[in-house]
Order: sequence, then structure tokens, then C-alpha cells
Amino acid sequence: MKLAALLTSAGINTAVCVVLFSLYSILRKQPSFVNVYFGAKIAQVRSRQQDAFCFDRFVPSPSWILKAWETSDEEICATGGLDAVVFVRMIVFRLCITANSAVMEFSLKNLSIALCYVYEPLLHCSKLTLLPRIVDSFRIFAIAAIVCNFLVLPLNYFGKEMQSHHIPAETLEVFTIVNVEEGSRWLWAHCFALYLISCCACFLLYLEYKSISRMRLAYFTSSGSNPSYFTVLVRAIPWSREEAYSGTVTRFFRNFYASSYLSHQIVYRSGSVHKLVVGIHSVLTETGTMCKILKLTPRELHIGSNSMRCGLCGTTASFSILPMDAEGDKGRSDFGGSDLRKKESAAALVFFRNRYAALIASQSLQTRNPMSWVTNISPEPDDMYWPNICVPYRLLWIRKIAIYVASMALVAFFIVPVSLSQGLVHLDKLQKTFPFLKGVLKRKAMSQLATGYLPSVVLVIFMYMVPPIMLLFSTLEGSISRSGRKRSASIKVLCFFIWNVFFGNILSGSVIERFSKIFKDVNFLLATAVPSTVTFLLYVFILRNKDVTTYGTMTFPYHTEVPRILLFGLFGFVYSTLSPLILPFLLVYFSLAYLVYRNQILNVYVTKYQTGGTYWPIVHNATIFSMVLMQIIAMAVFGLKKSTVASSLVIPLIILTLLFNEYCRQRFQPLFQQIPAQILIEMDRQDEQNGKMKEIYQKLTTAYTQFKSNSHTLGDPMPPSHNNCKLEDLEINPGSTF
Amino acid sequence: MKLAALLTSAGINTAVCVVLFSLYSILRKQPSFVNVYFGAKIAQVRSRQQDAFCFDRFVPSPSWILKAWETSDEEICATGGLDAVVFVRMIVFRLCITANSAVMEFSLKNLSIALCYVYEPLLHCSKLTLLPRIVDSFRIFAIAAIVCNFLVLPLNYFGKEMQSHHIPAETLEVFTIVNVEEGSRWLWAHCFALYLISCCACFLLYLEYKSISRMRLAYFTSSGSNPSYFTVLVRAIPWSREEAYSGTVTRFFRNFYASSYLSHQIVYRSGSVHKLVVGIHSVLTETGTMCKILKLTPRELHIGSNSMRCGLCGTTASFSILPMDAEGDKGRSDFGGSDLRKKESAAALVFFRNRYAALIASQSLQTRNPMSWVTNISPEPDDMYWPNICVPYRLLWIRKIAIYVASMALVAFFIVPVSLSQGLVHLDKLQKTFPFLKGVLKRKAMSQLATGYLPSVVLVIFMYMVPPIMLLFSTLEGSISRSGRKRSASIKVLCFFIWNVFFGNILSGSVIERFSKIFKDVNFLLATAVPSTVTFLLYVFILRNKDVTTYGTMTFPYHTEVPRILLFGLFGFVYSTLSPLILPFLLVYFSLAYLVYRNQILNVYVTKYQTGGTYWPIVHNATIFSMVLMQIIAMAVFGLKKSTVASSLVIPLIILTLLFNEYCRQRFQPLFQQIPAQILIEMDRQDEQNGKMKEIYQKLTTAYTQFKSNSHTLGDPMPPSHNNCKLEDLEINPGSTF
Repeated sequence: MKLAALLTSAGINTAVCVVLFSLYSILRKQPSFVNVYFGAKIAQVRSRQQDAFCFDRFVPSPSWILKAWETSDEEICATGGLDAVVFVRMIVFRLCITANSAVMEFSLKNLSIALCYVYEPLLHCSKLTLLPRIVDSFRIFAIAAIVCNFLVLPLNYFGKEMQSHHIPAETLEVFTIVNVEEGSRWLWAHCFALYLISCCACFLLYLEYKSISRMRLAYFTSSGSNPSYFTVLVRAIPWSREEAYSGTVTRFFRNFYASSYLSHQIVYRSGSVHKLVVGIHSVLTETGTMCKILKLTPRELHIGSNSMRCGLCGTTASFSILPMDAEGDKGRSDFGGSDLRKKESAAALVFFRNRYAALIASQSLQTRNPMSWVTNISPEPDDMYWPNICVPYRLLWIRKIAIYVASMALVAFFIVPVSLSQGLVHLDKLQKTFPFLKGVLKRKAMSQLATGYLPSVVLVIFMYMVPPIMLLFSTLEGSISRSGRKRSASIKVLCFFIWNVFFGNILSGSVIERFSKIFKDVNFLLATAVPSTVTFLLYVFILRNKDVTTYGTMTFPYHTEVPRILLFGLFGFVYSTLSPLILPFLLVYFSLAYLVYRNQILNVYVTKYQTGGTYWPIVHNATIFSMVLMQIIAMAVFGLKKSTVASSLVIPLIILTLLFNEYCRQRFQPLFQQIPAQILIEMDRQDEQNGKMKEIYQKLTTAYTQFKSNSHTLGDPMPPSHNNCKLEDLEINPGSTF
Repeated sequence: MKLAALLTSAGINTAVCVVLFSLYSILRKQPSFVNVYFGAKIAQVRSRQQDAFCFDRFVPSPSWILKAWETSDEEICATGGLDAVVFVRMIVFRLCITANSAVMEFSLKNLSIALCYVYEPLLHCSKLTLLPRIVDSFRIFAIAAIVCNFLVLPLNYFGKEMQSHHIPAETLEVFTIVNVEEGSRWLWAHCFALYLISCCACFLLYLEYKSISRMRLAYFTSSGSNPSYFTVLVRAIPWSREEAYSGTVTRFFRNFYASSYLSHQIVYRSGSVHKLVVGIHSVLTETGTMCKILKLTPRELHIGSNSMRCGLCGTTASFSILPMDAEGDKGRSDFGGSDLRKKESAAALVFFRNRYAALIASQSLQTRNPMSWVTNISPEPDDMYWPNICVPYRLLWIRKIAIYVASMALVAFFIVPVSLSQGLVHLDKLQKTFPFLKGVLKRKAMSQLATGYLPSVVLVIFMYMVPPIMLLFSTLEGSISRSGRKRSASIKVLCFFIWNVFFGNILSGSVIERFSKIFKDVNFLLATAVPSTVTFLLYVFILRNKDVTTYGTMTFPYHTEVPRILLFGLFGFVYSTLSPLILPFLLVYFSLAYLVYRNQILNVYVTKYQTGGTYWPIVHNATIFSMVLMQIIAMAVFGLKKSTVASSLVIPLIILTLLFNEYCRQRFQPLFQQIPAQILIEMDRQDEQNGKMKEIYQKLTTAYTQFKSNSHTLGDPMPPSHNNCKLEDLEINPGSTF
């Protein structure tokens, strides 16, 4: 591909981008669209009705960019939860690494200033402690930037392997390592750059992991009154002929946890016909395409969601209103084994007197049979995924295996359309297949458009189809929480992206061809990424008239966005030393992503539940994977260039990177899997001293409501954790034994 | 190889075997050898001095075989612990599976009787519950035996692929699947046999796993007074400038475990120069080759072991006698940061008031830093491996990785001598290399001897070298218990055997050649296995004069014997359908092993510590691996024989086997990793009601003695768990805070 084609494509993308940004700036100021663009804010405070006409409304302004730029991590955390902070940090990290070797046009001074701004949020976050560290990492950055941009790129360009054209007509290969002579002595520069980038990345990864661990610990402390800390989810309660599940639970916990057991709440099952409907329904709601496909009015959707809440196990299509637990009314206890017992599922939420007791109960193997009395710390009330809790525990392992196989099959099956799309990229093939296009494609602009856009269009379609399917898989897998489901889906989507987009699309060609493909991917990045972050906004705008209320409840789609950023990070790492020309484009992408996602987190999405930052281990592992892949590919390329010294010098780097990963796994990962006992004990003590426990016990009774209305009135001042459960419609009180 | 060569080899082996057995029968009756052959018994009871001469002493008699045969599983468990029962069960399981398809000479009736006897120990164990199940599995056996022996073998023999010789001169290939025609319709019989064997094996595996789980639960209950249940091993205690480790521990546990914390005992470090010496010393002691190499008198060994106990961290070569803890004597607390503090390591044993509290403390993540206050349930006092406990925790992960890499290297490196040994097998090569041997090797008997014995001799040398190296690796890996070290070593040795002996030796040839090698391995089995079980006895006899006392303390070498049995099980599975002729030989081997090992467990080895049956998951996984390998090889062979139907019929069998494995993992494995809370709580309650707790607390004070003499007087009546710690020499009292 020629440089000119690349620039054409970049030009189109920039133009589209500017138009969309302006459009967004204007639209968001229109009072009638306020529900669309400020869903999150509106869920908390009723907006001021500002209908007055003024000229300012129709002038594009960068105020929202400034706002997104200025917001501190604390504010992000308050609005979007720790997961949102982790997400933003992920982008910043990639931005840093990319900036590292990308900004070849910048002078060193400009670079320093730019990096200073990139680091501003970090400075905001922990003003004093991080400062010296940033100065440190900053120095490393400066060195790396000099090396990569003033050494590697010129070396590539003057590598003499290809004949030099006039620059605009130059094929892009001259900027890559392909242009370097075989056995060139200058390959040590590439090797040095590789070492520097790896060291910087590891150093930054360590700082980030450390700081996010600290945030996670702070999150535990700050979310102290969360009922989930007091609650243990018990599954696989053994069935007994004489007693209802409720009685069995009481007897078991009164026996073994006499001092700390407070009460419990049985999980009920309901209509099972709707199993798949519920699965698809919730998937579609998550991804926001619900209304488009089902064509429901808000009211229909509202009613529908009631009778579709807990499917998957029972036999009736809609649930009936279940009365209080048997201990409350003696009248019904006569027909013991009948209606009520049939609706009980073998799962219960057990409440404890303090957090530490709940932690203990959740960690132990309870009885002699590991397949009964399975305990976990319960998810937050809004995070509970009730349908899966009703699933018999003994079937879960089969489901998990089946889903694992299905995911693998999906990943393998999708390589066929991907390779088809790859065939479309080649202009000559296109002309052969569709002869009537010959005339059109002969025009230069059109041919460049086809080369630049066609592969990305096909890939975008894949990208939009895969995450909902993976989310459905994760649902069927049996995750007990919504956040866990998204987390599992994001891992699946990441594997899919890495295999199909990266390996399938790039590494399938021959070695030389591989490097020529990089630049198609630059287009692909800009063509998919920039619009995709703005597409959502347009999408909301177009669908606005159908159902305004739904959008207020949309949670951030981590399962699509995390893999996407990680995929582009992978691109950045792998090509950073081999063909640094990709880096400025990635830099632009990450900067845009930084602003757009921050804006969306602040204004658009609602945070109902969060994982408490457990996306970071995924990010960390994916980054390490990218780095090792970068090193292995570099080693292979050095080998092909017949520089055995450079090639063998990479081996210790790979070993060191893997050792670093292992260290981080030892040092930080346990915090993302278990809650430290110390923190819970300290919180318990504080609450006992303050006399807050009574109040917390009171709240526990009503915290978990299995059957509830999905409606909520816009603009009502509600606490964030309950903004979706007004409990105005029918509602089951827990089968508690208070 | 011809049938005649095989028979010659078998004949030699049988003769050697009979001679050794007779020798053993006679020798064990000599009063002067009683220390050698009854080490375990003598450790408990002083033997009657029976020096009277009688003729009976010099007549070989099978009484010990009868004794070994008659002993019930309960007696084995009482003498050798649960691990010994697991070991015997492993052999019985393989015996059953081998018997299944092996006994082609037997009529069905004889087979039934034989199997009845094989099952006797099972019947003994749980008389009523297992009976109906055995009848069930018995039926399956009968069917499988008919199919395998009366269908597969004749089919192979009359397969017409090779021309039929007179039987004694027949090459052994005619009995294998090699002799079956390509695309033969009779391959369904092999496929059917495969299904039957897999089903039988899975069914038996399930029964065994279930019964061993039950035994493990019973083991928990029966070992209730074990101090390890009350004790938590804390490592990585944070260092503080103001306080000794002892004070830090007290403060931490008084703060967070106020109600259940009883006291603690700091682990001290000593000479570090002897680090490697200690490692090698203990390895050699375990494998029993110590005295041979170091040429020490018993007294030297005795003294030596004192100054070599806890190496690995300190600086002095021998430790000094450390006084009681600082809290006891105020006089010394003045020079706080000096001598005593320097000898404290960052590890402690913390005692709790009840078992459940200790379990809880061992399971939780304690503080905000996962690399400090690392807690585990402590091993039993005799099981503690003190040198490794002193190792700084933060270095352990590096050690683990280094050892992992070293083990891999060892496995890869050893393939070179193995392939050299393989070259020696071929007679013609041998004649070329050593021309002077030509005359000798031309004699028929000698050539058959060379073909039969040479490969096995080389392999035996490997087999004896590898386990001590792997045990040394496991020691350096940082296992805190002796049993855990052996367990880890046995996994490493198993991997080594499977890769080098099985894959390296058998699968390296071409497909046809592969099957001709099987029969060399039959020889190899008999040549290594039968003598190796008796070799030990001879070995003890020869070395007897050097140091009688050492042998009384020898524990069963699970790390060599478990992999060996599993390797032969692998042979059995893989060749059961393809060349059933291997099976009678394996049957003989397993029968001998059954008797010899039972005898050794009962009479020779001392049980100082045990893992509580955690070898079974290794056995289970290795068996599943063998089965899947058998199925994959069979599938490949069916494919080569151009029977796609039979080949594709194997695929569901593989899937089912893997699903079965996953089910067992879910259902039973947690019991081998965690102790159920229910059991501990029940034991605690019982002891509190009986008022036994005071007594247990008293015992806890002295249970763990880090520095102790290794000597013990033979024949002294000591409790089995303390038969090695007479505490007569110098001894450190714990730094307790009672």
C-alpha cells in the first residue's frame, strides 16, 4: 500500500471524526435530548428545564472535552465505580506506552509537555506519593522516545533494502524493519528499543497494579455498608423429605454457625419456558439493541420484564406472588410438601451478624460432600443474576464444559468469514469477482476507499455480533452475578479478537506480506475505532423516540470495550519496534478514546453494580501476553534478518518478562480473588463501636428482592444503588426468620 | 522377537524370582536378621529373643505370603497409614483391570474364582456395602474377559496379515493387532473391547475414589488429637525495628483472633553452610543409600544429623542451644535486637483453642499485603520439614520456577542416554561396536540374554538415579512437609517415566516397529520389577552390619514406587486391546507387587507421617491419562487399518472419559485439598464435652520440637507418632506464651 492511500484514508477518518464531534457538541446542548446524553446524571437529579432558545446551542464547543479532561479519578470513581477507573487507567496506560515510541513528529520538549498532560489524572489521584515515581517513569519515557523515534525509524528508512522512491509515492514498507538489510549491524538499535519499551511497560504495569490494588482496598472500606459483605449465597442445599429447604438451612446454620447466623432468604424459582427468552432479553438489554429488535413500547417492555425475571427452572410461564415464609404463618405449614415447597429452589441467601463470619462461611468446605452446601460470598443486590442461582448446582460443571467447547467452536468457526473478508481487501480480486465494479474501482479515490474501508466494514460487523453471543454464553455458563457474567464474556471476546482479528487477519500471510498488512490495520483502527466510540451516541439519538427510559439504565459495556482497547494495545506493542509508523495513529485513537469514554462514564451510563476492579488482572495478563508476543515476533524477525546476536539477546528479556508477571501474580492477584480478613474485622469493630449494626441488620431484610419491578421514574432522587428497584410493583418479601 | 526368546527371558526371571523368594523366606527367620526384616514391628515392641536352633529356620516357607495375603485393609491402615492403603488399592485396581483382559489361559470359571480372591481385601474393608457393587463389577469383568481373550486374541492370530509359522518360532507380532488385515470387519471387536475396558475402569475408579474419600474422612476423625489440626504455620511475618518476631505475632493474633488464639512458637534458623548437605543428606537417608556413600559409623551419623538439622538460612555451621523465649526470662530482654532476634526466622507456629479456628485462620487472606502473614495448616510434628520453613517466603516463587525449569531440563536431557540404551538393544549393533563379543553373542542363549536384559539394565540405572534427584528438587522447591515433598517428587518422577520410558522408548520407532518393542518391555518389566521389589531386602541384608538402627526409621518410598506402578499400569492400558499377550505378564507382576509391598508395609517400613491419602488424586489422574492415551492410540491404529467407523467410534469414548474425570474432580477432589468444617466442628464439640481440651493444650506445648535428636532406641515401646523423637538429647522448648 502506498503512503498516499493511507493518507487518504486518514483524511476521511479525520473529517468524519470532526463532523461527529461537532454534531455531538451541538446535540448535547438541545434540551429535548437531555435524557439521552445525561442518562446517568438524570438518574440522580432532575435536570433543570432550560428550554430558552439561544444561539450558543448551535455552536460546536469543546466544553465537554474539557470537562472530560478535567475530571479527577475520584469523581470517575464516584460516578462509574472502580471498574470505570480501571478502564480509564487501561487507556492511559496504553496511551503512555504508545506515546513512548510514537510521537516522532514532536520534539522532545513537546513530548515532555504532552506526557505531563497525560499524567495529569494520575497526579490528581494521589498528588504527593505518585509524583516522584512519575518523574522517574518520565525519564525512562524520554530515553525511550529518543531511541525509538530518532533511531529505529531512520534506520528503517535508510536501510537500503528497497529502492528509495519519492516520499509520497513510497510504499509503507520503507518505514518498517523489512527495509533493513539482512545481517545489518544496526539491528541492535531495534533490540535496544525492545528492551526499553519492555522495561517501561513493566515498570508502569507494576505502578498501576500497585495503585489499583490500593484503590481496591479503599473500595472495600468505602463500601462497608454493602449488604453483600454480610451475605453468603448457599447452593446445593440437600433435599429432605420431611422438611422444606428453609428448615434445612435454619437447622444447618443454627448448628454450625450458631453465634453468627442471623437469618436467611430462600431463592424461589419460576417460569422455565422463558429461559432462553430471558437470556436473550437480558443480553439485548445490556447491549442496548433490545427495542430495535423486539419493537416494544416502554410499557410492554416493562410488563414483559416482570414475567420474565427468573426463568430457567420452574414450569409455569409466569410466577405467582409468593407469601411470606412458612415460619410466619402456621396455617399453611399443614400442606408441607405442596405448592410453596415446589417453588423453592435449592439455594438461599444466608445473612450473618458480621462481615468476617460471612467471609469464613464462604471460604470453608462445609460438609463431607463437596457437591452440597456450596457457599460463596453473595454479589451485591443489583448484581445478582437470579435465573442462574436457581440452576441445580450439580449441572453447572456440564454447562461450563459445554460452553467452553461452544466458545472454542465459535472462535474456530468465525475464521472462515474473516478470511473471506481478507480476500475482499485485494482490489484485483474484487474486480475479478464483480466485473461490473471495474469501472468504478478504476477511479483512484474509489479504489483507495475500497482498499481502506472494505476489510474494516466486514470486521466491524463481526465485532458487533460476537460480544452479545459471548455474553449469552457466559449467561448459560451459570455465573451468579451480572458483573461476573460480563467479566467472563470480556475474556471470551478478548480471546476471540486476538485469535481472529490479530492472528487470523495478520499472521496468516507470508512473513513479508505480514508487514504490508500492518498499514491496512491502521485504517482499520481509525475506521472502526473512532466512529465506534461515537456511533453509540448517534445510535442513542436515532432510537431516542422509541423509549427514552431504557437508556438511563444502561450499564457500561465492559465486555465489548475492554477487549477492544486491549486488542489495539496488542497492535501497538507488536509493531512498536518493527514499524513505528503505526504508533501516531494509535496515539490519536487512545487520546480520543480517553476523552470519549470518560465523557460517557460521567454522563451516559449508569453504574448499578461493579466488580471492584477485577478487570485489572485481565488487563495485566493481556498486556504481558502482548509484550511476550512482541518479543517473540521481534526475535523471529531478527532471526530472519540473520542477526543471531540480536535474536538471542531477546531470550533473557522474555524470561524476565515472564518472571515479572509471576511476581505480580504472587504479590497482587490474591487481593482480586479474596477479601483480606483484616479489613472486614476492622469494619466490623468500627460498626459495633458506633452502634451501626442494628441499622445494617434492618437494611439486610429488604436488601435482596428477587422479584421486583424493573421500572423507575426518571429524575427521581434515588440512592445510586437502588435507582432501579423502586419496589412499587409487586415484590416478594424474603423468607426471613427475623 | 521370537516367542522362544520371550519364553527364555521369562524362564530366567521366574528362576531368579523363586530363588530370591526362598532366600527371603529363610533369611527372615534368622534371629540375627530380625532388625532388618521387622524394622516397623521392632520400632513398637521389643522382639522376643529367640536364638534356639531349629531345622525349620532353613526351610523356605510361604507363611509370610499368606500373612501378607490375609492382612485386612484396617491392619494395613493401622501399620502403614492411609497412604499405604491407597498404595495397595492402586495395585489392586491395576490387578483387576489387568486380570480383566489378561487371563486368556484361564477358563471363565477359574477367572471368577481368581477375581473373587483379588476382591477379598475390598470385601474385608466394607463387608456389606461393597458386596452388591462387587457382584455388579464382577459381571462386567466376566463379559470383558470373554470379549478380550476369546475374541481379540484369536482375531489377531488368524488375521492373515503375516504368514503363519509353527507356533514356537512364531514372531510375537502375530498376536498383536499388526496381524489384522487392513479394513478388516473384525476391528469392531477391538473397538468393543476398548469400550468395555474403559467402562470397567471408570466404574472401578469411581468406586475406589468414593471409598478412599470415605476413608480419608474417617482418617480425619480418627486422627482428631493430632496437634497439626490446632496449629497454623505462619510465614512472612513482617519485620519490625522495635519488636522481635515473637512480639509481632502475639500482637497480631491477640488483635484479630483474640477469642481463639492460644500461643505460638517461633521457628529458629541455624547453620546455612550445610544447606545443600542437609538436602542431600535427607534425600539419601530417604532412599537408604546414605551409609553406603558417606561411610559413617552410626555414631558419626548420629552426631552429624544434629548439627545438620536446620540449614539453609543462618550463618553458623552448627546451632547453639537456644534458651526459652524472651517473655519467660526478663534478664535477656535488654539486649533486644541481638543474638536471639538474629536467630529468629520470619515464621512461627501458632496454636489455637480449637480446630475450626485454626482452619479459618489458615484459609483467609490475612492482611492487605498477600506476601505477608501467609498462613497454612501446619503439617504433623514428624512431617515438618524445618529447613524449608526458614526460607524467606518472598523467594519461594523464584525457587519454584527454577525447579520447574530444572525438572523439565532433566526430563529432556535424559532422553539422550535412553536412546543410547535403545541402540544397545539391537544385537547386530552390539556386535559391530564390540567385535570381540561376536563369539559370545553367537551362542543362542547369550544373544537372547543380551536382547532381553541389556535395555532393562540401562533403564534400571536411570530409574535408580532419577527419584533421588527429583526428591532433591522437591526439597529445594520449598515444601514445608516431608510428605508434601515426596508427593511432589512422585509427580515429577511419574512425568519423567511417562516421557522417557514410555514415549522415548516405545513411540520413537515407526508404527510397526512400535509393536515389536512391546515384548522387549515385557522382559523389562520382569527384569526390573520383580528383582527391584526384592532387591531392597537383599540390600538391607548386605548393608546390615554398617548401621542397623537407620533402617528402622525408613519410611515407605512412595516417590519411587507410586510412579513405577503407574507406569506399568500405563503399559497395561495402552496394549490391552492391541496386543493382549502383555497382560498375563503384567498380571504376574501386579500379583507379586501386591504381596511384596503388603509384606514390606507390614514389617519393614516405619510410618512416621502420612499425607492422608492424597496420593489417590495422582493415581486417578494418571489412570485417566493412561485411558485417554490408550483410546487415542487405538483410534490411530484403527485409522491406519483403514477402519474409519471403528476409528470414529472411539471419539465419543474419549469425550465420555474426560467428562467422567471432570465429574470426579468436582465430586471428590475438594476433600483432598480442604478439610470439611463440619468434621472439625464436631470433633471440637466432642472434646469440649469430654473435657479433653485441657489435655490437648498441654500436649501442644511440646508437640513441635524443632531441634531434636535423631536417635532412638530399638524396641522401646513408643507411640507410633513419636517413635523418632525421644527428646533425650538437646532440645529447644517452644517460645510459647502459655
